[in-house]
Amino acid sequence: MEFHDVLRVRIRHKPGFMAKLCVAVAEKGAILGDIETIATGGEHSIRDVTIEARDDATIEAVTARLREIEGLEVLSRVDKVYERHRGGKIEVRSRVRLEKISDLREIYTPGVARVCRAIQKAPELARELTWAGRNVAICTNGTRVLGLGDVGVRASLPVMEGKAVLYERCIGLSAVPILVDTKDPGTFVRTVETIAHSFGGIHLEDISAPACFEIEAALVGKLGIPVMHDDRHGTAIAALVAARNACRVAGLDLRELRVGMIGCGAAGTGITELFLAHGVKDMLVADRNTDFVKRLVQIGARAATLEALLAEADVVVAATGVPGLIPKEAIRKGQVILALSNPEAEIDPDVALAAGASFAATGKSVNNLLGFPGLFKGALDAQSDRISPAMKLAAVDAIIRHTPEGALTPDGLERSLHEDVATASREAAIAGGHSRLKENTPRATLLWTASNKGAKS
Amino acid sequence: MEFHDVLRVRIRHKPGFMAKLCVAVAEKGAILGDIETIATGGEHSIRDVTIEARDDATIEAVTARLREIEGLEVLSRVDKVYERHRGGKIEVRSRVRLEKISDLREIYTPGVARVCRAIQKAPELARELTWAGRNVAICTNGTRVLGLGDVGVRASLPVMEGKAVLYERCIGLSAVPILVDTKDPGTFVRTVETIAHSFGGIHLEDISAPACFEIEAALVGKLGIPVMHDDRHGTAIAALVAARNACRVAGLDLRELRVGMIGCGAAGTGITELFLAHGVKDMLVADRNTDFVKRLVQIGARAATLEALLAEADVVVAATGVPGLIPKEAIRKGQVILALSNPEAEIDPDVALAAGASFAATGKSVNNLLGFPGLFKGALDAQSDRISPAMKLAAVDAIIRHTPEGALTPDGLERSLHEDVATASREAAIAGGHSRLKENTPRATLLWTASNKGAKS
Repeated sequence: MEFHDVLRVRIRHKPGFMAKLCVAVAEKGAILGDIETIATGGEHSIRDVTIEARDDATIEAVTARLREIEGLEVLSRVDKVYERHRGGKIEVRSRVRLEKISDLREIYTPGVARVCRAIQKAPELARELTWAGRNVAICTNGTRVLGLGDVGVRASLPVMEGKAVLYERCIGLSAVPILVDTKDPGTFVRTVETIAHSFGGIHLEDISAPACFEIEAALVGKLGIPVMHDDRHGTAIAALVAARNACRVAGLDLRELRVGMIGCGAAGTGITELFLAHGVKDMLVADRNTDFVKRLVQIGARAATLEALLAEADVVVAATGVPGLIPKEAIRKGQVILALSNPEAEIDPDVALAAGASFAATGKSVNNLLGFPGLFKGALDAQSDRISPAMKLAAVDAIIRHTPEGALTPDGLERSLHEDVATASREAAIAGGHSRLKENTPRATLLWTASNKGAKS
Repeated sequence: MEFHDVLRVRIRHKPGFMAKLCVAVAEKGAILGDIETIATGGEHSIRDVTIEARDDATIEAVTARLREIEGLEVLSRVDKVYERHRGGKIEVRSRVRLEKISDLREIYTPGVARVCRAIQKAPELARELTWAGRNVAICTNGTRVLGLGDVGVRASLPVMEGKAVLYERCIGLSAVPILVDTKDPGTFVRTVETIAHSFGGIHLEDISAPACFEIEAALVGKLGIPVMHDDRHGTAIAALVAARNACRVAGLDLRELRVGMIGCGAAGTGITELFLAHGVKDMLVADRNTDFVKRLVQIGARAATLEALLAEADVVVAATGVPGLIPKEAIRKGQVILALSNPEAEIDPDVALAAGASFAATGKSVNNLLGFPGLFKGALDAQSDRISPAMKLAAVDAIIRHTPEGALTPDGLERSLHEDVATASREAAIAGGHSRLKENTPRATLLWTASNKGAKS
């Protein structure tokens, strides 16, 4: 349902007229969203009615159908999605006052010179005295954007801005989309290396496999700041949360079960790695790309055919991008099915449940939004040089603690969730010894946290 | 005066005590800044007194001297400059609401997919549907930062953040500091080219000559978006404003005078180019670097020795970085002197005036803050692919219109100034035919301007 349009209607303010509207929307295959009353008076009211639809033609059909109803007038139609994106979704704002010349002399020349010299002498001070202590570059080459594939860097920018919105709203980090216009992994790596001092962390996004593996491997550990490919590790965190929560409901321990991973691209590789790190002992993997499979066999997984995997696994995770890949006949009674591909899953959860699965979900409820904001915040707070497997597992534990009884994942927009993930990943970084902070550093003494508050005034 | 410290004092609330404080500050060679009363009560008041000083030792001496005064207690000392910089001076903020899952579905997946596809089909839509229509990258390699020289990229970040603050506060553009960690011009150019689609304009900053010339030449006209080296062109705009205003006071026409340019690095080159474009017929240039001089002779300037230039020019502009380069004996009666080097000028204006100059100023009053925010805003509004000489000259005219009678330059923090510069440069871009907009496009139909307002709600 990519279309979210608002129809402004003038409608008789009598019982039954809104019902007619709702029926008309349903008749045309659209979903009714929010209804907001703009004005009421006398015989009529003005309402903004949000219509969700798969395509423009459906919205047009709804509009035409509504116009046939007596006592109902369609005044205007606004494309909410376009309106939301117009002018871009993010902006850079000043955190300091600039009203008088004395302000200018403190934040710019001549005052700034002393801050520059301090960083020149002790470069690590950049983490405290610049925004590089709390910003992240979201780097992409636009080769694997959502379910859209290779749309090019410019067309990927709305997605990167969306991630930046999530960073700010979930955890208060500043994220900057960086479109790296190359398909050559070497050029990508050199470009990011050259500009890396501008940022406190590097979030890799929507890069197709196998280039994403090469790029991540070349950058991790080289820049002195955390680097993470979110499609690999963020997705893995969400998948492990969902799998463990599903097992919890059934009273099982995921580690003792046989888990099958279908599709070993960025997401499948990350999921297999993290499930093994969690302690899953028996992990089957299937992919047409034998290189991808080999890589995972080397770290402890077993190669399997799709058929064998479906027949044997207690928990099946699929991240193939192939809608309907899993036939309902293949579902084993009691299986847990996580079919993650978007927007169309490998099997419809209702179908899987009807075929005997004990639990089934799609990527819609397993969103990597759960992990990345808190993980990067924790890494930056700890001044960690990496995002380690232990940090990811600590994040998973924190997210599971936030999951309501019986649910697969918690509400991704809950701010306290992200704060707890940040704390967990920060503590794991310090315990892992790859942080510049010592264990038991009281939170209040983290300079940037303190200053973050102070400088706002 | 790089140190701006606040001393919190408890002082007798009787006539004469503040006078004692003021005298003590002056005795130690410091300048008194703002005084703010925090509390009064009974016999004493608490005041925050800002002290400006050249170094830390002076502040310490002031503090010690104050402690000797009876009825005065120094409670604390706060380094205002450091406080202002802590945590960085800028942040990325969301412009869209994100409260409910339906918001997420509009700004992120699945709604965003339609926006991505629209840009994929018509890449120019990125100017309307992403922040690339109103953002600028401030790119530096940190090789010539203020008067500090080559401090490296990390130490340059506070200056770049300061410029970003100015962009936001003066004209509402989003500027992102990009530290390009290389001294090789080719690598610099390739890096910026590779990430250029992330931005609507490229502002080059604090790059040493001659690399800055090579970098600018390689990028201008290649990216399809405006590229400008501010140390070259922004400084030139401020200098031309100051020179024309100085001539206006004396009732002269700059174009009919002999102008001498001392120092032909980035700033001197830009100034010579812009003065010639303005119509100055007789332009002398002097620099030890013969390559720099040759380049300017090719476009119509005449080479001169420092001595000959000082002897012959009616208007002398200096941008050498050499304090005290111009001896007072060389000043001719009636000469206009603009000694622009910071923080120490080529000649003290008071000395120049005493030696017979009719007008003298330093770089402190000739700040390139006057030009760049409005120029880039105008270029982005016009969807111009460049910042042309005509746009710079239009900006100069607009700035001159804002200059109060008898002053050299207007107040750089006045927002209406920047708005008028933006309008002037936008109109010049459209008239020049290198804009995607047609002449006489009503302002209200500029999509991003309209959306900029709309999306805020």
